[in-house]
Amino acid sequence: MTGGHFITLEGGEGAGKTTLLSTLKARLEALGHEVVLTREPGGTPGAEAIRALLVTGAADRWMALSELCLFFAAREDHLERLIRPALARGAIVLCDRFSDSTRAYQGQAGGAGRAAVEALDGLIVGHTQPDLTLILDIDPAIGLKRAAARRGTEDRFEGKAFAFHTALRAAYLEIAETFKHRCGVVDASVAPEELADSAWALLVARLKLS
Amino acid sequence: MTGGHFITLEGGEGAGKTTLLSTLKARLEALGHEVVLTREPGGTPGAEAIRALLVTGAADRWMALSELCLFFAAREDHLERLIRPALARGAIVLCDRFSDSTRAYQGQAGGAGRAAVEALDGLIVGHTQPDLTLILDIDPAIGLKRAAARRGTEDRFEGKAFAFHTALRAAYLEIAETFKHRCGVVDASVAPEELADSAWALLVARLKLS
Repeated sequence: MTGGHFITLEGGEGAGKTTLLSTLKARLEALGHEVVLTREPGGTPGAEAIRALLVTGAADRWMALSELCLFFAAREDHLERLIRPALARGAIVLCDRFSDSTRAYQGQAGGAGRAAVEALDGLIVGHTQPDLTLILDIDPAIGLKRAAARRGTEDRFEGKAFAFHTALRAAYLEIAETFKHRCGVVDASVAPEELADSAWALLVARLKLS
Repeated sequence: MTGGHFITLEGGEGAGKTTLLSTLKARLEALGHEVVLTREPGGTPGAEAIRALLVTGAADRWMALSELCLFFAAREDHLERLIRPALARGAIVLCDRFSDSTRAYQGQAGGAGRAAVEALDGLIVGHTQPDLTLILDIDPAIGLKRAAARRGTEDRFEGKAFAFHTALRAAYLEIAETFKHRCGVVDASVAPEELADSAWALLVARLKLS
């Protein structure tokens, strides 16, 4: 249906997604591809306005189902106004978090429930599923220590209890198994260059890039 | 399941919902009932923060499905933090707009589609359906003229084309027919005192108040 490729990066706090994204972007551009680098929640003005409600305030600011609806409200804007148009013109979209974050944070580790996440994912994402999802796996004890070093004001999810982050890691590994046709797990405890090389190898193989 | 009563008021712009709500509240309190007067979107701090995104900005600010998710995100907060606790302690909740507004504005007159609205209503509202819904019916030519006289900054929905408001009226009358076990239509083109008397007669009969 589309000429482009949709690649999502997932993982807990401090896994190194931001650094990896900019490395992958540079390598893809060096091969002559148009790359659209974006993030969730956010990516468009409407979705960023919703992001402001999601990432600030107390950890219990939102009921689980409210939070779920806010994520998908933002996702619809992001898909319709940025991701689908970019894929239609043949670009490679690199997205920092997508529906698998909602599955892990809200559907499994949080309280919204898997059935509610899948119902909304079917309604909003539909056929625009990622072609490749890189899951950056890291022990939360290491990830949270890295994240603490750069902590800013957007700390609503990082501020949740350690047990939550352990549940989150297990949730991501389960997602990788459930959706193995599109997911690849990479060890994110290594140095950034090594992580970039593992991720790049997966990307080239999966998308048949040359 | 609950000791209280959940009453919602619905209708297009300028139907006189606000005036009617305060009259009904006074009459119910005179009978000794605890009355919780609230509104949608909004009614709780979280839901009011989402309301700010919904009621300001250009008419095409949100994609239809984003708007739908924002309404239900706010509704979940409102239900869990205000409406359900009030009903559980036996209060009468009077709510200015509820899911039937979403059915009429987003599901029928707007572009989200009925199936999407019912899926979210099942997920979020579930069994907390209103005991009585008063639908204030008025010719949009009269209603919009009344609304223009008090126009403020929250005019995103009032600013839509006249044809939209005509479709909206038809949508409300269809909702009244579909959910006739809980809906009552009252003529809102009459004077406020007359409207209050019609609405009160319906309320007393339906809820078996004395």
